[in-house]
Amino acid sequence: MKNTASSKERYVVLMAGGRGERFWPLSREKTPKQLLRLLGRKSLLQLAVERLQGLVPPSRVFVITTAVQAAEVRRQLPRLPRANVVIEPMGRDTCAAVALGAAVVAARCPGAVMAMLPADHVIHDAARFRQTLADAFDVAAREPVIVTLGIPPTEPATGYGYIRVGERLELPHNSPRADTIFHKAEAFVEKPTVERAREFLQTGRYRWNAGMFVWSVPTLLRGLEEHQPRIHAACQRWIATGHSPARLARLLRRDYPTLPRISIDYALMERATNVVVADASFDWDDVGSWSALARHLPRDAAGNTLQADCVTVDASGNLVLDARPGSARTLIALVGVQGLVVVHTRDAVLIVPKDQAQKVRDLVRKLETEPKYRSLL
Amino acid sequence: MKNTASSKERYVVLMAGGRGERFWPLSREKTPKQLLRLLGRKSLLQLAVERLQGLVPPSRVFVITTAVQAAEVRRQLPRLPRANVVIEPMGRDTCAAVALGAAVVAARCPGAVMAMLPADHVIHDAARFRQTLADAFDVAAREPVIVTLGIPPTEPATGYGYIRVGERLELPHNSPRADTIFHKAEAFVEKPTVERAREFLQTGRYRWNAGMFVWSVPTLLRGLEEHQPRIHAACQRWIATGHSPARLARLLRRDYPTLPRISIDYALMERATNVVVADASFDWDDVGSWSALARHLPRDAAGNTLQADCVTVDASGNLVLDARPGSARTLIALVGVQGLVVVHTRDAVLIVPKDQAQKVRDLVRKLETEPKYRSLL
Repeated sequence: MKNTASSKERYVVLMAGGRGERFWPLSREKTPKQLLRLLGRKSLLQLAVERLQGLVPPSRVFVITTAVQAAEVRRQLPRLPRANVVIEPMGRDTCAAVALGAAVVAARCPGAVMAMLPADHVIHDAARFRQTLADAFDVAAREPVIVTLGIPPTEPATGYGYIRVGERLELPHNSPRADTIFHKAEAFVEKPTVERAREFLQTGRYRWNAGMFVWSVPTLLRGLEEHQPRIHAACQRWIATGHSPARLARLLRRDYPTLPRISIDYALMERATNVVVADASFDWDDVGSWSALARHLPRDAAGNTLQADCVTVDASGNLVLDARPGSARTLIALVGVQGLVVVHTRDAVLIVPKDQAQKVRDLVRKLETEPKYRSLL
Repeated sequence: MKNTASSKERYVVLMAGGRGERFWPLSREKTPKQLLRLLGRKSLLQLAVERLQGLVPPSRVFVITTAVQAAEVRRQLPRLPRANVVIEPMGRDTCAAVALGAAVVAARCPGAVMAMLPADHVIHDAARFRQTLADAFDVAAREPVIVTLGIPPTEPATGYGYIRVGERLELPHNSPRADTIFHKAEAFVEKPTVERAREFLQTGRYRWNAGMFVWSVPTLLRGLEEHQPRIHAACQRWIATGHSPARLARLLRRDYPTLPRISIDYALMERATNVVVADASFDWDDVGSWSALARHLPRDAAGNTLQADCVTVDASGNLVLDARPGSARTLIALVGVQGLVVVHTRDAVLIVPKDQAQKVRDLVRKLETEPKYRSLL
């Protein structure tokens, strides 16, 4: 690894291609979760870019997205250079997206350190987030390791993958403020039962896998070469296109359909021996469902989150969201209901109990089978 | 009582002035329950008039309603003479409405027999209904009795008043097909607890009070004279206006505010000693709430009544009704919900569990306190 000035350049690749079915009817193919203003004036993607302010400039932030979402991504991020919005010709799971992100960064700076981050999570404490990320950049710039940010779990969640950590590592830091704790990663564990999740919590040796990774381009390429040679070969071809978006797009259209559909966890993390875990010291929520969203929005005295023109009688713990244009809004009256999610958009109404919000995916599956509901996807 | 041919003329007065709050947001002040097409192409009022076919001609059917509803009543009942739609200047409970109904009938035919019937109940077996009513007319034409139709109870309902019956009466019938059973009424009992209602059912001596009455005009007037002299005096003034709707309307505006607010049950039925009960042999439902309505509409395999563009996942026993114009309809998606009522109109959405549907009245009370919701009443 060359150790020139440019090799220390920091890049961030935001993965923003998700379909966000769990926020239907608000999320659609063209406007998945990360493009929605779920928490206020700014979309989760805009907040994700804003959160990097002072750490990585917009010129070094890339967004990987889909063709149908690219226009909206560019509209939401006017300060990002047009070429920094990179379009996957199709979904091919996260390992392909990681290789693509690494290729566009490597074409600019072959020795760069880079972070791959989801664009649809909620993190309120941006300062501590930047500190953890800066420490991870430092380590990845000096050591040939794959850094994954691990979230210390606060409850026996069954919806996340876990990482078991081993010995604590004393890694040299650049920053005098650096205080992030690093461990060796021992194992990646898929979503557990609640009993196992409780055990994980008790041991103190497990972290939630938040899908946030930091590495140097050379370290990642060596990992891909060893564990995913076909994806590595495609990645090298993409790097060779240099700065030509048109040439890259042509290559991607040819290569993508031939790539294995495999997640970066399964393709690389579970196989590599040089993975370290940086403990996140910031709050984190992947807001995986309507019920998770309610946690981040203000509530009335009865525990209702009412982002709509609502009247309630004996109703508590409900989330009501009216996303219709102001003139099209109507009164939504809740009588005697508890813990319900009600979402009203221009063309659909969803009603689901909070504790079954994950079933919205099944609903989207069902809509996909009916041609007449095509416009609702 | 004169026994001329005209004294046998049969009249029906339908009471159609209810506010129908329990079917909000579909029912409004201008279109209460009886004017809604809850069961198909025809409103409950239209069905109530149709049900009389062959027994009483439209020229002898009167409808008592309110000023805001009169235009829609006339529109729905084009075969009724215009003067047969009688407007109460304000709601003054049922005794005043009964006196008004008797006055307009008496002005046409002082010795008539007449039925006072609600316009917002559901009765499917029209033939048996007409037979019971014909038998009641016969008895009321020959005997100085107040006939009330009693519904043999099928469950320990707590939402109805009950009538305790005494000895069975052998009354002369005109019709060779007459088979209605008559009893002396012993007592009118207000809505009971479920324990008392169970006792009532076991004795076999109780009937539901359905608010359906038959009497001759002279018999009713004698009853009012004895038990409600103020209302009787007003009624005599109204009869004296003869056939002039304008004179009657002026008198009503003057008299109505001075009348006691009292129900016919409390004002007359509970006090009179000449009340007899005719057992109804027809089905009957007063459809007092959204959940009651669901019993009369078709269901899918999961027990959902879906009068809307609906997609369901793990949803059962729900009632969904979209009353928006076709072009304004949107998909309504139910995921994991049971026994819910969802009603969508042009300007409001209601969500309430079936077993709490009676609380819709509380909601309407709440809307009445907010000037901005005036248009929703």
